[in-house]
Amino acid sequence: MASGRTDKFAFGIWCVTHRGGDPFGDQVRGRIGALDAIRGLAQRGFWGFEFHDNDLWPIGATARRIDKTVADVKKVMKATGIRCASGTTNLFYHPVFKDGAFTSHDPNVRAYAVAKALRAIDAAAELDADNFIFWGGREGAEADVAKDPVEALKRFREAISFLVDYIVSRKYRMTVTIEPKPNEPRGDLYLPAVGNALAFIATLPARLGRRVGVNPEYAHIKMAGLNVLHEFGQALEAGKLFELHLNDQVPLRYDQDLAFGSVNPKEALLLVRMLRRHGFDGIVAFDCHPYRTEDEAGVWDFVERNMRNYKLLAERADQVDADPRIRGLLAEINPGGRSPHAKFSPDVARKLKAASFDPDKLARAKRLAYERLDQLLTELVLGVA
Amino acid sequence: MASGRTDKFAFGIWCVTHRGGDPFGDQVRGRIGALDAIRGLAQRGFWGFEFHDNDLWPIGATARRIDKTVADVKKVMKATGIRCASGTTNLFYHPVFKDGAFTSHDPNVRAYAVAKALRAIDAAAELDADNFIFWGGREGAEADVAKDPVEALKRFREAISFLVDYIVSRKYRMTVTIEPKPNEPRGDLYLPAVGNALAFIATLPARLGRRVGVNPEYAHIKMAGLNVLHEFGQALEAGKLFELHLNDQVPLRYDQDLAFGSVNPKEALLLVRMLRRHGFDGIVAFDCHPYRTEDEAGVWDFVERNMRNYKLLAERADQVDADPRIRGLLAEINPGGRSPHAKFSPDVARKLKAASFDPDKLARAKRLAYERLDQLLTELVLGVA
Amino acid sequence: MASGRTDKFAFGIWCVTHRGGDPFGDQVRGRIGALDAIRGLAQRGFWGFEFHDNDLWPIGATARRIDKTVADVKKVMKATGIRCASGTTNLFYHPVFKDGAFTSHDPNVRAYAVAKALRAIDAAAELDADNFIFWGGREGAEADVAKDPVEALKRFREAISFLVDYIVSRKYRMTVTIEPKPNEPRGDLYLPAVGNALAFIATLPARLGRRVGVNPEYAHIKMAGLNVLHEFGQALEAGKLFELHLNDQVPLRYDQDLAFGSVNPKEALLLVRMLRRHGFDGIVAFDCHPYRTEDEAGVWDFVERNMRNYKLLAERADQVDADPRIRGLLAEINPGGRSPHAKFSPDVARKLKAASFDPDKLARAKRLAYERLDQLLTELVLGVA
Amino acid sequence: MASGRTDKFAFGIWCVTHRGGDPFGDQVRGRIGALDAIRGLAQRGFWGFEFHDNDLWPIGATARRIDKTVADVKKVMKATGIRCASGTTNLFYHPVFKDGAFTSHDPNVRAYAVAKALRAIDAAAELDADNFIFWGGREGAEADVAKDPVEALKRFREAISFLVDYIVSRKYRMTVTIEPKPNEPRGDLYLPAVGNALAFIATLPARLGRRVGVNPEYAHIKMAGLNVLHEFGQALEAGKLFELHLNDQVPLRYDQDLAFGSVNPKEALLLVRMLRRHGFDGIVAFDCHPYRTEDEAGVWDFVERNMRNYKLLAERADQVDADPRIRGLLAEINPGGRSPHAKFSPDVARKLKAASFDPDKLARAKRLAYERLDQLLTELVLGVA
Repeated sequence: MASGRTDKFAFGIWCVTHRGGDPFGDQVRGRIGALDAIRGLAQRGFWGFEFHDNDLWPIGATARRIDKTVADVKKVMKATGIRCASGTTNLFYHPVFKDGAFTSHDPNVRAYAVAKALRAIDAAAELDADNFIFWGGREGAEADVAKDPVEALKRFREAISFLVDYIVSRKYRMTVTIEPKPNEPRGDLYLPAVGNALAFIATLPARLGRRVGVNPEYAHIKMAGLNVLHEFGQALEAGKLFELHLNDQVPLRYDQDLAFGSVNPKEALLLVRMLRRHGFDGIVAFDCHPYRTEDEAGVWDFVERNMRNYKLLAERADQVDADPRIRGLLAEINPGGRSPHAKFSPDVARKLKAASFDPDKLARAKRLAYERLDQLLTELVLGVA
Repeated sequence: MASGRTDKFAFGIWCVTHRGGDPFGDQVRGRIGALDAIRGLAQRGFWGFEFHDNDLWPIGATARRIDKTVADVKKVMKATGIRCASGTTNLFYHPVFKDGAFTSHDPNVRAYAVAKALRAIDAAAELDADNFIFWGGREGAEADVAKDPVEALKRFREAISFLVDYIVSRKYRMTVTIEPKPNEPRGDLYLPAVGNALAFIATLPARLGRRVGVNPEYAHIKMAGLNVLHEFGQALEAGKLFELHLNDQVPLRYDQDLAFGSVNPKEALLLVRMLRRHGFDGIVAFDCHPYRTEDEAGVWDFVERNMRNYKLLAERADQVDADPRIRGLLAEINPGGRSPHAKFSPDVARKLKAASFDPDKLARAKRLAYERLDQLLTELVLGVA
Repeated sequence: MASGRTDKFAFGIWCVTHRGGDPFGDQVRGRIGALDAIRGLAQRGFWGFEFHDNDLWPIGATARRIDKTVADVKKVMKATGIRCASGTTNLFYHPVFKDGAFTSHDPNVRAYAVAKALRAIDAAAELDADNFIFWGGREGAEADVAKDPVEALKRFREAISFLVDYIVSRKYRMTVTIEPKPNEPRGDLYLPAVGNALAFIATLPARLGRRVGVNPEYAHIKMAGLNVLHEFGQALEAGKLFELHLNDQVPLRYDQDLAFGSVNPKEALLLVRMLRRHGFDGIVAFDCHPYRTEDEAGVWDFVERNMRNYKLLAERADQVDADPRIRGLLAEINPGGRSPHAKFSPDVARKLKAASFDPDKLARAKRLAYERLDQLLTELVLGVA
Repeated sequence: MASGRTDKFAFGIWCVTHRGGDPFGDQVRGRIGALDAIRGLAQRGFWGFEFHDNDLWPIGATARRIDKTVADVKKVMKATGIRCASGTTNLFYHPVFKDGAFTSHDPNVRAYAVAKALRAIDAAAELDADNFIFWGGREGAEADVAKDPVEALKRFREAISFLVDYIVSRKYRMTVTIEPKPNEPRGDLYLPAVGNALAFIATLPARLGRRVGVNPEYAHIKMAGLNVLHEFGQALEAGKLFELHLNDQVPLRYDQDLAFGSVNPKEALLLVRMLRRHGFDGIVAFDCHPYRTEDEAGVWDFVERNMRNYKLLAERADQVDADPRIRGLLAEINPGGRSPHAKFSPDVARKLKAASFDPDKLARAKRLAYERLDQLLTELVLGVA
């Protein structure tokens, strides 16, 4: 399938090594080591892997231990050709972060979080990562009485600015992305959705902000019931879609992290189609987990289906856009044409105000055969010729 | 109650004149005329009213009819002292807008929408409105196959830019706000949440963007399950909270437009408290509807309870912040303190990386008595001394 | 396609005649008369139609007017061969029902609702309807302080019992179904979900209860975020699934009434598959609306795609169950086998308590290749061979 | 406060001993032993405690170990006077249950689950528990292709029937309840909501069914966006509300298990009011968890606020019903009156059909001052005199 050739498919190693524990249940699978996870991804044709610092070394590891691990990872990278797509810092597991990392009320915790991130950035740079991700998994609240969101955002900005400044000062080539999520594990997280993250980035000094984009996660968007296509689309339009985190989710549920395309293939197809139409060439990472019912072999079934679904949907998306019936209806529905108000002048405004419009006639001017069009799409999704 | 003295309380006249029709049911109440609605609001102590063009004159009205109506409204304003808080254009009721106004595929529809907005802006200026609102009630989609959100945002920006440019060129004093909403009446609306609108504004030319803020609606935030405090908070932190649209909503339901504070007074209190702590002095507008079971008299019961709840909650919010137990716990939980990373320098980064932290000890450094604090808040909400 | 031959496909005539008005917008389409709607359904191969009394005659119509209309409908039925699948009473549109029909606080309103239903039942019997539906569109509340749900359920039971008793006494052959819905147009509706309706039916006198089942609506289940398959499944297992109301819905939104299979074809396929595996032979009715963007011609595009999707999915469902890879995995995952506790005896209990189990070993006894299985299903949905 | 005197307040010991681990984070608190938890509850005035078998002894414990523990618990009960409200079996933590316990595809797993439940029932009987709870925490699915909900319900019924038969045969006095939950930890759980559980119970043999009721959990109802009052109300009306599981929850989020009354005190008040009006005298148990930010001392702050909120709300509920303004409006809105259709006869039906009604007049017959009434309620919630 041609679509896979150039896509930068990546997988989080934490997804592979996750042993199936959940809030109500114990781990169910044996341990897959981080290096084995990377090797397994390389064998299956993935372009890259992603890591948290503590996927590779435990919290509190010595510099020597970290250097040793990074060297081991580089060996696997060299041997297999896999790249490091993105690195990130785990600022959510340890109790020290229980009330926030960058937004903690305790300046020492904030400082520790920044120090931990600095070290993870160095490691990511050493692994030549394309990107560095910030997901504020504990930046949020349950009891809002004690936390002012205005103050929290200022603290968040302070930390992100410092860390991006560091990346710039070190001449690291990596970009930076923010990953929004509405809730879980906190009752509410700051920067809950794509728009919030884009708006936050717009408040950074321009010199730093241009280095920062978003890596929206499919399931996180669905948790807020927002439209996946529209959210990725706004990031794309803003030139800020640096990376994708793909998976799937049944709305109105806890963070499920299901395989991409597995819940609603039609919805996933529309996203893949938009990405292709706009020439998206950033990282296509999967961030999800196998069902808890899977054993170790099942983990790899799971890994494979994510990339396979993306490729199947990419191929199908191209068929959609090549289908003459679809093309015909699209041309009818959206014939193009420039707006008279494309550029402001007082004269244009005057003319527009003076113009005579017949709204009843305009309303009837054109058939909008969306039912027919959407049915064609549905049949193409189903593979009905 | 002191809190009401200076607050700029406003109400949408469409809320008063709404006759109780819904998708499954007929109108249930008699007609209250727009001028009577304005008079009724003035009598009840409201600082301002808000209007859509077609609340005052029908679509397609002649310039003379519009001028006459505006003159009539001005007389009522003069007689009663009520102000025009915000104006807006109805770009959602007529079939011509069934597939979008500013983002319609049809350039003639887009042009008509802009022309209609220009005329409404002129009327708002004539009424000396403080603000002009854009809510894209039909800017969205059900069948995403035919609508590219990237293209839609470009069209949205084209229209907003033109209209703000017009306001600037005419030296109108009004600000402009965007009102986000996730869905209804379209399956998905573009600019669905506060962050999306803030991010969109950040892409306007700076000259225009500084004139544009948001008027988030309480219920619209709850429709997406996002945190009301956090969403208003991000707008506040960005200096873009120009106006509030208050009401209430049970999550996971159609747009209910219930009276402010009526669903969850504790949640509403936290918002009012944040606004007061940050000295918010913009328009406090209510945008909601009486229960369909009310008759004409009940409409005014409904109108009054909105402002009354805001005032009661404002008073209560001040009690919360004055309560010594609350103050004590807040001081314990959030003692302040500057982050070492407040300002970047390579040296600070080096020191932070080299610093020794004991996360286990840090995690235990301080008690975070949120249950106790939130219980105190709960009891203050309940009026338990 | 063989699957359509024997299925009892039906459509609500209100779906065809709906002119596209919504809470924020005017009607957009011309009028299609009820008789034309029935004819159009017959022409497109539908087995039946469904009606509300006021789809055929206005509220307050004289007996003569009703008789005349029924006679006209019978002529169309005779001429086209289409049947009347289900009738129902509109107990939601008129202001008299604004605070409930069968559960109104006003005994006169309750009596009027029952009288209106009696007349609709007679008309349905005259049209030889297979079923009569009760959807309590106004049986609910926004302000729960004034309505005791315990009292409301008693009133609901009183009315349903009376009406079923009437059907029995008149020897009408029709069954009765209850259609649950969680909310809209009321803030909360009584009998919000399939389980509530089944539990309510179980409290009817057995003599009446056996005549009463449910007609769950796909979209109503998704509005509560419940699992469509599981909800229809419980009704099926209870022997109470008399009729389906099919459509589709994006979760977390107002009642959308989209075309069946159009939002998530994979989810819809699982439902059709379950129905076929259990030999469901009741009414397959569609209750949904065209996009508001459609014109009159688009209404029929919309009507057709519902039945077409059902047939496509039925065919695909049979392929799933015939696929040897699917069959193999299913046999591996669910090999069958009787439970030792299938029938109680003290001796079996004693033996079970005394038995030695090794949970760790049991946990590992069998691979559960759900990722692989679900991927096969996903690919079959996509029509990948 | 009088309201607490006779209420059977109980707490799950797992709530106290929970150490704050979550899917993204480690445990944060030290261990509180089960016996210390029971003692702590007794000291704080709780009438009872609730337990899972594995809160007291580990899975696989010998009969001797179990007997020893039960004896230890009895000593604490005797010493403190606390009772055992309800017992239950943990059928969700161990990997053996990863794909279901009573509904597992593996007959050996089903048998093991029943055996484990039998032993827990014996222990509960020994502790003289009033009730035994079944929550099917793993009875559900993510990949529905392999699990037929019809078959699953049959397996569920087989196990419940056997276990209730055992309780009856042993002459244990305990009742049995089913606790519904829509999802988490499975993608979807069978018996997701109160109605489903009531409907399921109605399919048990009457001899067993009369012993079985429900213990709805407040937060589980809110997870599905259903109305808390209505769901508890239907259980009450059916005579099946044997026990409450109280807590709180922000809708549209993972299972949060917050303190009762802490999210929305107005909603909680309406529930407490209904329970008091209907003389509910079953177990009032709390099933929730402290914020993860709490230390060991905070756990007890948390425990106390649950009972305190219930008592505060009970007192307030009585004030609501004693308020003359409320009473006056309620009498106006719901004046009572018997339905003519209270009892069926052909003659009544005939008369009703023949009666003349004026719906327009009926619609206007009575003012329904719900806004005023709900505002009075809101002010009473806020403690405004």
